[in-house]
Amino acid sequence: MITRSHCQERDTADALAPLRTQFALPEGVIYLDGNSLGARPKAALARAQQVIADEWGNDLIRSWNKAGWFDLPSRLGDRLAPLIGALNNEVVVTDSTSINLFKALAAALHRQAHSEKNAGRRVIVTERANFPTDVYIAQGIASWLERGYEVRLIDSPEQLDTAVDESTAVVMLTHVNYRTGYMHDMRRISALAHARGALMLWDLAHSAGAVPVDLNADGADYAVGCTYKYLNGGPGAPAFIWVPERHQVEFRQPLSGWWSHATPFAMQPLFEPTGGIRRALCGTQPIASLAMVECGLEVFAQTSMQTLRAKSLALTDLFIALVEARCGHHPLELVTPREHARRGSQVSYAHPQGYSVMQALIARGVIGDYREPHVMRFGFTPLYTSFVDVWDAVDALVDILDHEKYDADALRDAVT
Amino acid sequence: MITRSHCQERDTADALAPLRTQFALPEGVIYLDGNSLGARPKAALARAQQVIADEWGNDLIRSWNKAGWFDLPSRLGDRLAPLIGALNNEVVVTDSTSINLFKALAAALHRQAHSEKNAGRRVIVTERANFPTDVYIAQGIASWLERGYEVRLIDSPEQLDTAVDESTAVVMLTHVNYRTGYMHDMRRISALAHARGALMLWDLAHSAGAVPVDLNADGADYAVGCTYKYLNGGPGAPAFIWVPERHQVEFRQPLSGWWSHATPFAMQPLFEPTGGIRRALCGTQPIASLAMVECGLEVFAQTSMQTLRAKSLALTDLFIALVEARCGHHPLELVTPREHARRGSQVSYAHPQGYSVMQALIARGVIGDYREPHVMRFGFTPLYTSFVDVWDAVDALVDILDHEKYDADALRDAVT
Repeated sequence: MITRSHCQERDTADALAPLRTQFALPEGVIYLDGNSLGARPKAALARAQQVIADEWGNDLIRSWNKAGWFDLPSRLGDRLAPLIGALNNEVVVTDSTSINLFKALAAALHRQAHSEKNAGRRVIVTERANFPTDVYIAQGIASWLERGYEVRLIDSPEQLDTAVDESTAVVMLTHVNYRTGYMHDMRRISALAHARGALMLWDLAHSAGAVPVDLNADGADYAVGCTYKYLNGGPGAPAFIWVPERHQVEFRQPLSGWWSHATPFAMQPLFEPTGGIRRALCGTQPIASLAMVECGLEVFAQTSMQTLRAKSLALTDLFIALVEARCGHHPLELVTPREHARRGSQVSYAHPQGYSVMQALIARGVIGDYREPHVMRFGFTPLYTSFVDVWDAVDALVDILDHEKYDADALRDAVT
Repeated sequence: MITRSHCQERDTADALAPLRTQFALPEGVIYLDGNSLGARPKAALARAQQVIADEWGNDLIRSWNKAGWFDLPSRLGDRLAPLIGALNNEVVVTDSTSINLFKALAAALHRQAHSEKNAGRRVIVTERANFPTDVYIAQGIASWLERGYEVRLIDSPEQLDTAVDESTAVVMLTHVNYRTGYMHDMRRISALAHARGALMLWDLAHSAGAVPVDLNADGADYAVGCTYKYLNGGPGAPAFIWVPERHQVEFRQPLSGWWSHATPFAMQPLFEPTGGIRRALCGTQPIASLAMVECGLEVFAQTSMQTLRAKSLALTDLFIALVEARCGHHPLELVTPREHARRGSQVSYAHPQGYSVMQALIARGVIGDYREPHVMRFGFTPLYTSFVDVWDAVDALVDILDHEKYDADALRDAVT
């Protein structure tokens, strides 16, 4: 039988525990929503003040060079690269995940359409259960290219084997599902796509900083991801895009703004793409939001994804074990895989009154979130989540469920 | 003969002079580059601290609703609207100018391609001297749509009359030229485009907050613009896009991310655009950078564009008069129109050693900038530029030119 003091002992033995002090976490809150918006690194406030008061206020226009604003997307990209198995000059931090998906998908379709062997392929394969913006962006591109693309939605990973065929141009998947926490086998699926002649695009929104990712080793072709979830970059912080060196020369995307020009200040009237990863840029970046991304990455530089993964699995294992031991008589259904290799850094439970139960948890400071239909999500971020947090969160859940301290009649629609 | 004390008297009489105290301007600097990066409203620092420490740090994920993060693009758009002759629910602040240009141009081409009368039009008319990113974005779209578009570059406004013809789908111009400060006649050119069956897209990067703009009255069809120049929104702050109510129902753009979905949290796998201007959104926005845009707009709410325009013209008139009176013997060529109706809020002079002269000015705290080829730009921002600033800037210029205090052999390439 696990006890709270057992959890306390694990915290005492946890080599990552001291990193929690680098985050500003409000009193009385157990924050299990770092999969949606990461907590604030304490350093972010001072960094923003520096950008706003000194770099903007005092140095003004000179900061584009003096403070390195113009280089920020690639400098941050190089800092992020080791977390996802990328090399220097393969990642830029820029724009939003949706926009970077558009660029990567457009580039992949362009590459196929201009290849000798695959020019006739007209299918984008993705999951119906993918995060909606991924599917919408694919539908947006498909409806704009007159040569005519189909967005083929599969209902389970098992369907990939039949859905990816000689008509498939690109397979586009989110590595860890936002709702269920299911993690795809990146290496196996990338190999499957390649075996069928398709290119493989991964969305790492719920992977970067959450699970070890090795894009180059696992044979990915393109990737995008988010910095404001597990990477703790700040609300809506710019996203990232990865293009491996081998695809950069042929990388073409229609958002060809001046930041991706070979000589952006020569003011030439003909677009000529720059070399390297900066050809995935478009226009001017929001510097204050962008600069804070570095503060999150600085915390990751003090540990390794392997160390984080070990604690992440220990936290999610503990959460599942406690819920099963203490809430087994309630209609909770684990929708996150038990198998470590298929699990991200979150645990999701479906409950018929999931929306109301989550509202009750939030009301007492246990912050997870809810996603239609029925799913309560609990994100575990080893940089600042403790084993006692897990105990206390389950304790609150037990009390709410056992004593029906939630509004059983609340309409789930309230969330939309 | 104008004197410095004459300029001081004008400052004393200037009703706008007190607004200068709302900006943080460094000691010893005369800032004439607000056309590139606006100065910092003092309120921006506290606003950023609020977003970072309270909204992100304390309220965390709850701030999407509680602090109104999700509504920021449209709330700021409504605040910006009166400055450009737009209505409520016609403007959103989002993404970059380049990306918004892509959306607007794509929507315009889509509208034409799906119209009965204009479906065959395949030409985008713009200026060779337009800001490069505008031309690059047009070239990007043209090269991606298989039906085949031509980007027709004109060399002077006079060529519009012959260049815009029955093959023209869209005329896309920047209202005030970044290099010369030349201002197009928005009403006349919009009418010309319409008379030929084309749609009219305006880039207001150097207009919004700089000159009065009346998009609806002047018959524009789409517009985009920048918040980090004359609107003082902060480095790389998100840009804006305007779609008039009459075009919103048919507005379609391929960057169809979840923020433009009718029910973004219902997690539906089919894209359905929302109503109103939010269908010009795509993905999650950089909240810290976005929130500071409001601080610049709050200063504009204390005056009117007509009042600002009167002072802007007085400042640029004074600058031209002083340069002509005191530097007439130097090879300076005024490239900004003398005619008020054709002049933005900047004055540009070409000089054979323009790059070096500007470096010498910057070294003594008179900050303008330089654009290839040969052009020194001086931006005048009536919210914080005084008449004495103009005198002192010219005084420095006179000293540098008269005594050749610049490196005549410096390579202009250094800027690129």
